[in-house]
Amino acid sequence: MYDRIKGFRDFYPDEMAARREMFDALEGSARQHGFREIGTPSLERTQMYVDKSGEGIVEELYSFTDQGGREVALIPELTPTVARLVVDRGQALTKPIKWYSTRPFWRYEEPQQGRFREFYQTNIDIFGSSEPDADAEILAVAADALTELGLTAEDFEFRVSHRDVLSGVLSAFDADLDLPAAIRAVDKREDVPEREYHDLLADAGLTYDDAAQFDDLLDAGSDDLDELISFAGDHVEPAVENLRAVLAAADDFGVSEYCTLSLETARGLDYYTGTVFECFDSTGEVSRSVFGGGRYDDLVESFGGPPTPAVGVAPGDATLALLCQRAGVWPDGEPITDYYVLQAGEVRDVAAGIARELRSRGHVVETDVADRGFGAQLEYADTIGAETVVIVGERDLENEEVTIKDMESGEQTQVPVEEFPGEHDRPTYGDFE
Amino acid sequence: MYDRIKGFRDFYPDEMAARREMFDALEGSARQHGFREIGTPSLERTQMYVDKSGEGIVEELYSFTDQGGREVALIPELTPTVARLVVDRGQALTKPIKWYSTRPFWRYEEPQQGRFREFYQTNIDIFGSSEPDADAEILAVAADALTELGLTAEDFEFRVSHRDVLSGVLSAFDADLDLPAAIRAVDKREDVPEREYHDLLADAGLTYDDAAQFDDLLDAGSDDLDELISFAGDHVEPAVENLRAVLAAADDFGVSEYCTLSLETARGLDYYTGTVFECFDSTGEVSRSVFGGGRYDDLVESFGGPPTPAVGVAPGDATLALLCQRAGVWPDGEPITDYYVLQAGEVRDVAAGIARELRSRGHVVETDVADRGFGAQLEYADTIGAETVVIVGERDLENEEVTIKDMESGEQTQVPVEEFPGEHDRPTYGDFE
Repeated sequence: MYDRIKGFRDFYPDEMAARREMFDALEGSARQHGFREIGTPSLERTQMYVDKSGEGIVEELYSFTDQGGREVALIPELTPTVARLVVDRGQALTKPIKWYSTRPFWRYEEPQQGRFREFYQTNIDIFGSSEPDADAEILAVAADALTELGLTAEDFEFRVSHRDVLSGVLSAFDADLDLPAAIRAVDKREDVPEREYHDLLADAGLTYDDAAQFDDLLDAGSDDLDELISFAGDHVEPAVENLRAVLAAADDFGVSEYCTLSLETARGLDYYTGTVFECFDSTGEVSRSVFGGGRYDDLVESFGGPPTPAVGVAPGDATLALLCQRAGVWPDGEPITDYYVLQAGEVRDVAAGIARELRSRGHVVETDVADRGFGAQLEYADTIGAETVVIVGERDLENEEVTIKDMESGEQTQVPVEEFPGEHDRPTYGDFE
Repeated sequence: MYDRIKGFRDFYPDEMAARREMFDALEGSARQHGFREIGTPSLERTQMYVDKSGEGIVEELYSFTDQGGREVALIPELTPTVARLVVDRGQALTKPIKWYSTRPFWRYEEPQQGRFREFYQTNIDIFGSSEPDADAEILAVAADALTELGLTAEDFEFRVSHRDVLSGVLSAFDADLDLPAAIRAVDKREDVPEREYHDLLADAGLTYDDAAQFDDLLDAGSDDLDELISFAGDHVEPAVENLRAVLAAADDFGVSEYCTLSLETARGLDYYTGTVFECFDSTGEVSRSVFGGGRYDDLVESFGGPPTPAVGVAPGDATLALLCQRAGVWPDGEPITDYYVLQAGEVRDVAAGIARELRSRGHVVETDVADRGFGAQLEYADTIGAETVVIVGERDLENEEVTIKDMESGEQTQVPVEEFPGEHDRPTYGDFE
């Protein structure tokens, strides 16, 4: 009768269970590294995005005027919001600030594989450290989450680059270049034909000859960063050293096997200032960047706060699911139930008491709430993946017994009702056979 | 520089940790009862809410026209959406369908204590059972979550009522009564002056004398349901029996101590059809309903699906937090960190290796990513609530040792680096002293 809105998704339990495992891996890795969860509003002033990205951004937003006349937008990304939070209470917060959160975002874009109008990201950020160790910890948190999901170095790679290295090399060609435009061009290099990419570089102020030489430099520099210094001069040396230091820290943090130096990685957003990186499918089957991150040292200050270095990453649900599916590690999401307490006859009080006792020991326990017969209940227990069925029957109860049935083997045995669950933390058929 | 939008909230880590404990209790109870998580979109067609509640609802919605010309609304509640999901795929789903989800909702209302324009609810619903056991399981899931949070029967009560009992009694006064209006009036009984409440009943078609008698009946009926049958006649008997059966099932399910028969509980929403209930603060300090739920057997059919009985509950974040705070059980949300690995000198590789090994055993472990000195690191370790600090120092390492410090007692001891963490799952100072 009502249709779902284009680009929005419903998640039924099997798919949701798989997604929950994905988010648990991301959040679990962040928590284990000492990141703490925050919660953020779904609406912000539209002006916040316009100031940051220009009026053009509005057509990509779900932006509207609320009943109180405010121009508001469903948030398209988290970074401006966390910058606002840091500015609001930054002085009172222990540094470094290490935050994570998983939440939906909205962009009015054409839906395609791995892209929806409503999508989820787990944002993981460190504020207050300019050290390469912080950049490396962000890489490590992301890598640990991916390996927790079952992905290996055969499956994904982090292509690591540095904005100031790119800027330094570009400026060496022409100091008057439109740097943001040139970097956006580099970001599009893999997505557009080479001619179009060179046109974009030309629009930014590079000659076509320089553009070709620039490409050669990026390729050579990814093999040997010294090539860049010898071309672009000493002013890129600090950035090159910083990039090397990040990679050295990533090595100490045990994740260098996932990191590749790849100078053509630029990240499209204007606010990045140092390290940038993107996660790619090593096989190339998922052709888009899976997710990315980087350093944005100027954003908090541009929001009115004190100078606050920052670095973060934001894995998104749709592309990460594609990678997991490609690699064959996407969880099946099938239900797992520890116990089903089957009611045969007027035995609800006893059955409910057993269910309650088993739940108090931490288990997932269902019993009948639909007045079904024996066969229908057993079929339902199978559907929900019950490991053990506790059959509470009127006749058994006359002998003060219940029946414990192992659903995998089908074997069952009778047990005095006073001994179940008894002292066992997690009693199964095997404890009584 | 940018202000947060009125009625929306930022949650910093301490508050978010407390909220996460609240949601974990709600979701944990649902999971233990066999409910499975679903995910739903944040936008639906505005028409869905207009059809259900009339054009007047639009002014309470965040409703707008999207870039594609669709009239859409930020969802103000979950029930219509889950009804849509059941209709879309209901035939393929095992019955009963038991679903839960925690997510934000939005209503353009005046913010006040316990009410925000963006708020969270954990919705827990059963579709496909008309049995009183299903109603009782919903009560049990909610009660178990609240006791898990530390609340007791001294703190809260579920006031249980029944729409058909109310309707039956009201119809006995006047068969031509505007029933929905009369039930909305009952729902407002506690919130408005008695005169205004009687005016509302009069608007619905009741005389003032009947209104007074109706009130007396509700009070008497809450003590003895037979009073209602003797007044309203046999046609309310099935509803009364159903209500009694729900309370009997709740007793078997171990939660009768939290349930009170309270016929003046009506729930404002039109779609309820049977049992309705609201959770109240037993002390009355939190004066509003904390949350509510009930049976809505007609909604799925009204969305174009087959007849599908349904019952659910939806605890909301803001009022439940008020109740927990009033009862003194609101979590403090302070950080807990298992280990801080302190780096003294150029020891990052060893320190990072130890941190990594401890994380692989499931612990929360931080190390320095901001190049701070010994004292600053120790202070930070204290701030994040670290239980154990592992001090990795250049000099200690010359002797192949690290220092294990217990942060509560301040005691410390040196341990050969090859023995830490060694075979211990969770090594602390006590293992080495």
